[in-house]
Amino acid sequence: MYPFEYHNPTKIIFGEGTVGRVGGEARNWGRKALFLYGRNSIKANGVYDQAVASLRQSGVNYVEHPGVKSNPVLSHTRQGVEIVKKERLELIVAVGGGSVIDEAKAIAAGAVVEHDVWDFFTQKATVKDALPIVTVLTLPATGSEMNGGLVITHDETREKFGFAAGPLHPRASILDPTTTYTVPPDYVAYSAADSMTHLLESYFTHNDPWAPIQDRYVEGLVRTIMEATEKILADPRDSQGRATMMWAATLAWNRLANAGVGPFELPNHMMEHPLSGLYDLAHGAGLSIVLPAWMQWSARQRPARFARFARQVFDIRCDDDAEAARRGIEALRAWFNKIGTPTTFAQGRIPAEDIPKIADEAIKLGKLWGITRYTPEMLHEIYRLCV
Amino acid sequence: MYPFEYHNPTKIIFGEGTVGRVGGEARNWGRKALFLYGRNSIKANGVYDQAVASLRQSGVNYVEHPGVKSNPVLSHTRQGVEIVKKERLELIVAVGGGSVIDEAKAIAAGAVVEHDVWDFFTQKATVKDALPIVTVLTLPATGSEMNGGLVITHDETREKFGFAAGPLHPRASILDPTTTYTVPPDYVAYSAADSMTHLLESYFTHNDPWAPIQDRYVEGLVRTIMEATEKILADPRDSQGRATMMWAATLAWNRLANAGVGPFELPNHMMEHPLSGLYDLAHGAGLSIVLPAWMQWSARQRPARFARFARQVFDIRCDDDAEAARRGIEALRAWFNKIGTPTTFAQGRIPAEDIPKIADEAIKLGKLWGITRYTPEMLHEIYRLCV
Repeated sequence: MYPFEYHNPTKIIFGEGTVGRVGGEARNWGRKALFLYGRNSIKANGVYDQAVASLRQSGVNYVEHPGVKSNPVLSHTRQGVEIVKKERLELIVAVGGGSVIDEAKAIAAGAVVEHDVWDFFTQKATVKDALPIVTVLTLPATGSEMNGGLVITHDETREKFGFAAGPLHPRASILDPTTTYTVPPDYVAYSAADSMTHLLESYFTHNDPWAPIQDRYVEGLVRTIMEATEKILADPRDSQGRATMMWAATLAWNRLANAGVGPFELPNHMMEHPLSGLYDLAHGAGLSIVLPAWMQWSARQRPARFARFARQVFDIRCDDDAEAARRGIEALRAWFNKIGTPTTFAQGRIPAEDIPKIADEAIKLGKLWGITRYTPEMLHEIYRLCV
Repeated sequence: MYPFEYHNPTKIIFGEGTVGRVGGEARNWGRKALFLYGRNSIKANGVYDQAVASLRQSGVNYVEHPGVKSNPVLSHTRQGVEIVKKERLELIVAVGGGSVIDEAKAIAAGAVVEHDVWDFFTQKATVKDALPIVTVLTLPATGSEMNGGLVITHDETREKFGFAAGPLHPRASILDPTTTYTVPPDYVAYSAADSMTHLLESYFTHNDPWAPIQDRYVEGLVRTIMEATEKILADPRDSQGRATMMWAATLAWNRLANAGVGPFELPNHMMEHPLSGLYDLAHGAGLSIVLPAWMQWSARQRPARFARFARQVFDIRCDDDAEAARRGIEALRAWFNKIGTPTTFAQGRIPAEDIPKIADEAIKLGKLWGITRYTPEMLHEIYRLCV
């Protein structure tokens, strides 16, 4: 174990029929809210109506800021900051998936400073304070509902940058599994890939010689996410599968998986961001392309780690580490294909000839995130394993 | 999954050499503290000196209230409440194990009301507010450092009562594994039994037909606690074992093990409290006596659940549930004996002829806690399995 601090003050309200509690939670933090959401899905499934009724009943006035994109962009964030400042709003109510919650965090941080919100992403400024945020989650995947992290894409440069800060933890997040019953199969699969990768980044890259708490936490949740995904794909209204997926995805990226394992890196996120940034691919779809390729490349250096994954998650029985690792990676790739999330550039409609450009973007991000072990040549090699 | 709320705002500061941060954390909440601790152990191992130096350096004045007993008592709690009121203290700094932290919570709650603090335990009053608490944990076992629960024993009636309340979560808890290097082997064993039972109460008594998140969380932590305990008993200065035990014991009772599993009961705690209440036995020692007996009795009704435990925790390979359950329970009892925590009344010096009296106390507690399925006859039968 390594030293760590863990502080996660987000209140989770979990269960069927809890959307109606958003007004009461919001009212704890103010009377004038920015109501942030995406496009049509929350209107189609009734969540919009429930949230609006609850806010009104609790006496929370709100200004709507709809239209958050699935890879949320800086321009829309800046508009949100402007509205909050102009209307002197006191809190943000975010209803949607990780994109909406991420943008809510950026607006919450940008609204209390004079400088441009993008300065936080380029590390010119750090977040010391933010407006309170209350969320209603409708797509389990990113874990943003119970952490302080966010990712925003710059409209012009297409840079997809992220950071985390304590004050950006939502004050309360409402997790009502019934809001996810309409999430279509492709997004169910992307969400599985996303939350599994969240768990596996630290699992594969930490250097703690003995981390049984965190390793078992990760292995248990990865198996659970796989089982829940299969239940949901078999029956979109499987309440056990939907509820389990929702809580598992939250637990996958609320920092418990890596608290105490010491330094770790996010190589798959570094390699994926350029894909969804440049080609408007779903983040989870990009991850299911990158992850098995990165594992294949990394298993050459650390076969034991990837063999453990194969044995614990896929029950691979094989004493040779390199061979066990290989079978585990193949099993993961096969499972991604089975659930319908891409594992190749072709499936994700990414031109193979763009690899140098993609790698350049990844290198740039690696510099920002302190991941410096990958040369352009190494990245080319890994990306070629996705072709 | 069942509906739940999860809100755990305690900040954890984990790592070697972190005791010196107590002053800075305390200073966030006030300038005048009650400094609560037990008897001599924190003076012998240097933790007292480090804490005092840190408080002084941060400008936190304090009034000492030493002498917390290992089953903390009401009279000492009431004295603490009086000191806080008289000196108008602003926060509690608790340095010690779960007993010290539990008493800190009782004092924190009692200090802000006019009525007697025992009214909270008899459910005549509920906690709405409390003084802030900052803790330095020196004995991992009870999980009190990251939850809102506490247990206090009434000096005269020997009633050992407990409850939990949100405002009683410590604001910050400092977990420095080096403070536990002097914990002797018997207490290492009791702590293992204690934290394992915390995990297993909901695991064995919930009725969720599919709870893979929580079940795997419990199984992983139980295995980890067993491995860490063995490392510590082999070498008291094993830094991996001590650190892992410390964080695992915290995670065992911070409500993550049961968030979402629906209603569950604490039968082993109900049956143990009279033992440590009446005979001044360590709580963990009482639990290692009661748990295998209760499992034996309960496995008759629900063999599948106990068979799963046997297979996942002790790798028992046996298709018959009843037989697998039996072997798992025997393995657990043997392991408790191996590490040196009692599994029989004789080992715990509890007179078998007291069973009726002990059962009466358990029934009383069961009424308070809403555990009503056990008749005196059933309890006699379970207690007789401990003889």
